[in-house]
Amino acid sequence: MELKVIAYAHNGHTDKFGIPRQSREESPILTRIVFEPEYSIAEALRGIEGFSHLWLIWGFSETISEQDKSRTKPGSNTDTSSCWRNPTVRPPRLGGNTRMGVFATRSPFRPNPIGLSSVRLIRIEHGDLIVSGADVLDGTPIYDIKPYLSFSDSHPEAQNGFAEAHKNDRLEVDWSIIPGKRSDIGPTLEGEWLNDATYILSQDPRPAYQDDPTREYKLDYAGRRITFVVEYPKVIVKKIEKIAK
Amino acid sequence: MELKVIAYAHNGHTDKFGIPRQSREESPILTRIVFEPEYSIAEALRGIEGFSHLWLIWGFSETISEQDKSRTKPGSNTDTSSCWRNPTVRPPRLGGNTRMGVFATRSPFRPNPIGLSSVRLIRIEHGDLIVSGADVLDGTPIYDIKPYLSFSDSHPEAQNGFAEAHKNDRLEVDWSIIPGKRSDIGPTLEGEWLNDATYILSQDPRPAYQDDPTREYKLDYAGRRITFVVEYPKVIVKKIEKIAK
Repeated sequence: MELKVIAYAHNGHTDKFGIPRQSREESPILTRIVFEPEYSIAEALRGIEGFSHLWLIWGFSETISEQDKSRTKPGSNTDTSSCWRNPTVRPPRLGGNTRMGVFATRSPFRPNPIGLSSVRLIRIEHGDLIVSGADVLDGTPIYDIKPYLSFSDSHPEAQNGFAEAHKNDRLEVDWSIIPGKRSDIGPTLEGEWLNDATYILSQDPRPAYQDDPTREYKLDYAGRRITFVVEYPKVIVKKIEKIAK
Repeated sequence: MELKVIAYAHNGHTDKFGIPRQSREESPILTRIVFEPEYSIAEALRGIEGFSHLWLIWGFSETISEQDKSRTKPGSNTDTSSCWRNPTVRPPRLGGNTRMGVFATRSPFRPNPIGLSSVRLIRIEHGDLIVSGADVLDGTPIYDIKPYLSFSDSHPEAQNGFAEAHKNDRLEVDWSIIPGKRSDIGPTLEGEWLNDATYILSQDPRPAYQDDPTREYKLDYAGRRITFVVEYPKVIVKKIEKIAK
């Protein structure tokens, strides 16, 4: 089957590093879904406002492989181009050293690099959908949007296999080094950059197998580069810079 | 993006008529997922046994369009070949007379005819996955299998839009006309044909806009053809016949 791109996702995640590993109800990060001209028809959304949550079916391929060409060494374990190379992958949740079957994970390195995310529908704006909680990169192609049906899709008691133990890992974020009026840093898609960035950092964006408190990480979000270190269980923000366009 | 078939689903739903409209936790219907040779690797399933539920991402196209060629009149409202023809569809839940935007429904008539179903993982058997609750036709191509993550995928309080009012419609099934030892009718994939068939009929397989208690419907499931009428809120089974192969 050949999939056609129906829309693209736009948000502050211009860098794959920092994207939460799964969609989360509590995420403040907004994403704008902009339909391609052929599918940008108000009628196609009729009735969607009655649903609080939606499914996005999207593609890993165009988004990840481009970005990571420069970062990836041949044969490296952190190879992030998304294609079927190996029946097992190393989930970050397990520290990056334990292999799991690809169908037991939500890894991008699967036979068909399709992503699946439940998101909250915030509103419809000029034919775009504004959603929260999408764990996708800016520019991600969307292949389908479906209503979330609680009586069919919700299984609160589901057993989460190896993912269970790590589902609530959260770090505390310390901005105290950053001078000035921090709440003034400015808007993202809407709302507050600081709020979004705090959420992203609290999710521990580090590659899971790294645990060096002196190591500085850089993460780009919505026009600003954040430099931080992690002194577990705390993220300490060292610097915020505007990214030159 | 070009999707590769990784597996095929096998179950008693040789007829599209009768397939429950969404996957349901309580469904007893079992489906066997048989991997294609390239993906039939035990390692690819490592760790999957720890998850109680899985996502299937599958294709409507090959399954529905073949079957329905003969049934479909040009321009008819019940046209069931799955492709993008109209930004709105007529959900059976709404009686088939009200149009909703395609992205507000789970209709097969969408730009990319992908289906999404959460299923319960029953067990792994000789490299096949045995799952329950899949709302798919026998022979459906599967494009991806992902673990269900309750902390990301489960939203029990989600608002279901127009689907809310009809989510629990159930009919009572009356087998009293059928003679003989009914529990003897025989096994399906495993288990009992009668149990499966009762579930299917209770879901009201009629096209929603039909409400004629004298009209006889025929439904094929797992080698047997059921003839029934609906005297709301009851399904009365008139006949069971073996289907000649």
